[in-house]
Amino acid sequence: MTSKPAIYLDYNATAPIRPEARESVLRAFDLAGNPSSVHASGRAARDLVETARKQVGELVGVVAGSVTFVSGGTEANALAIDSAVASGVKRLVVSAIEHDAVVETAAASGVAVEVLPVDEHGVADLSKLTELLAGEGRTLVCLMLANNETGVIQPVAQASAIVRAADGLLHVDAVQAAGKITIDFSALGADTLALSAHKIGGPQGVGALVAGTRANVVRRQHGGGQERGRRAGTENVAGISGFGAAAVAALRDLPQAADQGIWRDALAQRVKDAGGVVLGEGVSRLPQTLCLAADGFASQVQVMNLDLAGVMVSAGSACSSGKVKASRVALAMGRTDLAPYALRVSGGWASTEADWIVCGDAWLAAWKRIGARRREVA
Amino acid sequence: MTSKPAIYLDYNATAPIRPEARESVLRAFDLAGNPSSVHASGRAARDLVETARKQVGELVGVVAGSVTFVSGGTEANALAIDSAVASGVKRLVVSAIEHDAVVETAAASGVAVEVLPVDEHGVADLSKLTELLAGEGRTLVCLMLANNETGVIQPVAQASAIVRAADGLLHVDAVQAAGKITIDFSALGADTLALSAHKIGGPQGVGALVAGTRANVVRRQHGGGQERGRRAGTENVAGISGFGAAAVAALRDLPQAADQGIWRDALAQRVKDAGGVVLGEGVSRLPQTLCLAADGFASQVQVMNLDLAGVMVSAGSACSSGKVKASRVALAMGRTDLAPYALRVSGGWASTEADWIVCGDAWLAAWKRIGARRREVA
Repeated sequence: MTSKPAIYLDYNATAPIRPEARESVLRAFDLAGNPSSVHASGRAARDLVETARKQVGELVGVVAGSVTFVSGGTEANALAIDSAVASGVKRLVVSAIEHDAVVETAAASGVAVEVLPVDEHGVADLSKLTELLAGEGRTLVCLMLANNETGVIQPVAQASAIVRAADGLLHVDAVQAAGKITIDFSALGADTLALSAHKIGGPQGVGALVAGTRANVVRRQHGGGQERGRRAGTENVAGISGFGAAAVAALRDLPQAADQGIWRDALAQRVKDAGGVVLGEGVSRLPQTLCLAADGFASQVQVMNLDLAGVMVSAGSACSSGKVKASRVALAMGRTDLAPYALRVSGGWASTEADWIVCGDAWLAAWKRIGARRREVA
Repeated sequence: MTSKPAIYLDYNATAPIRPEARESVLRAFDLAGNPSSVHASGRAARDLVETARKQVGELVGVVAGSVTFVSGGTEANALAIDSAVASGVKRLVVSAIEHDAVVETAAASGVAVEVLPVDEHGVADLSKLTELLAGEGRTLVCLMLANNETGVIQPVAQASAIVRAADGLLHVDAVQAAGKITIDFSALGADTLALSAHKIGGPQGVGALVAGTRANVVRRQHGGGQERGRRAGTENVAGISGFGAAAVAALRDLPQAADQGIWRDALAQRVKDAGGVVLGEGVSRLPQTLCLAADGFASQVQVMNLDLAGVMVSAGSACSSGKVKASRVALAMGRTDLAPYALRVSGGWASTEADWIVCGDAWLAAWKRIGARRREVA
């Protein structure tokens, strides 16, 4: 369609694989072992898995033993929620901006679910949390660390203090935060924390649940005794190994992650100068996520215009099979007016300043065309 | 430990990745897209997934729409069983030689489980099946296509006729049979069928559930609408693509799979000449699986002796975290005497006649040492 090189600014949907992860995957392929086999290949495969467990643990400040490998962020969230329910939790409190993986798993869990609202900036309302926790029955609270659409960072450590005072449990979906900001599992006060490899530059199809001492991980996939009985099925050795390498690279690159924020903010300024709005501005956000909106410029029209210009971005969460829906997060923030117009631009490890500039050029050009057409119609 | 090149004859635990699959994985890595994204990368990723769906379908003679991708054979079995229970099945009949993935999922399903015994050759007892199906309530029967330890092929089509006459459902774990014998989903009369990529030379961490028109697949992992609502979570594009490529190669190589049988039988003869026994001999078996036993030659001693000689084989199923247990399959066959001594040798796409010969040499040398030591003791 275009001779220009494609620009990928949809890291929150999936990140390109890091070279270190790619190499780790290939090394594991060369090995060809089942970690449960006692022979040489099996032991070598086991070593790769356990090295990766340590590496992924280090990304969030925990020892290897706290990490259970699963098939992705969705399964990690499901393992956390199902484990809490199996361990006797009677109620779930789920923030209004959680990912579908949490919302839908909670809905299917068989226990009562209550929604924790967010304010106009997209930040969870902690006074409401205190109220919700006053109810009967032990409660699991699900509060993500950073939102996938706006990048807004949630007050998890403060929420944890409230949850612990009420003898509840706290699950933190850190799928979008990992590799973008520093994560310290203990400082967050989380009981469980979900990670996904492909959001940090590892391969798709791998994730991890990190569990602290108060959490009881109860397997939801039965069979062999893998993952110390917490998750049956032959380990995805290559995927896990790639996840470990991506975790090491992501931790190493954290100091540079802030650069994305400077380039992101420059694009935000151009959008605002042209009459657009930035969601979640003014509160703590991931440095590489920009959620913008411009009145009358439908999300899908923006995505398609940018795609034609060789710039890949998305409208909200990518997880709903190609459909572009009104942003649930914008709705939760009370921005019903902006929900049909929200666009997400998200950079990552390989994004450059030029990517953000070209994205801005393409967006402004499209926005001007739309405006010109409207003036013709008017 | 040894300067000899390692010989891998543990394909039933995991197969080395085929070059075609490795290349497909790398091509997908270069693409970096989420199939749910509407932009160019997303559409390209979607194409890879749908191409693979067609390829995996062709391996078992079904159209792409019958295939749901999951994280492996264990999840495929779980999706089949949980779906049947969610759809109203009241009882499970599980053959005595099913994989732990089926046995443990059935045990956790919440409905009654009855065991279908096997005869002394390890073949399911179909007269018993008729009896078991005479009970109350709709029943799901789980009968694997080929056993992972002995390679014995089960009378699935005959079982299907019995199951259908009783208005039951039939789930077939074809994880070990795929790529080794021709599979025709319709001819088998299966309602659901489980596949695993890494057993056919694809990557670990990917599998598929094939479902016919009588089966209702009900998702057990909630969140995004992936896999037409049957399995939430970002698709493992690279893994799925590698699975597709492995399926094409496995189908292409089926005519050569019989060669393994000739080499396998030559090894079996040497074992028998030395006083050993072959389990499942005389009935239809996968060509590349050999389950042998020699009285007093403990499974783990065999595995370790061969490992020191650079030959990698296993004792029964590999799925129980490095533990070498007495063969559950040998026990089911009534061979309590042989259960502690069973050894599994399994070849595959890259195995040569020389591999089988060297394995035989190593086994005979170890067996002679054991015998000599015994004579010294005696």
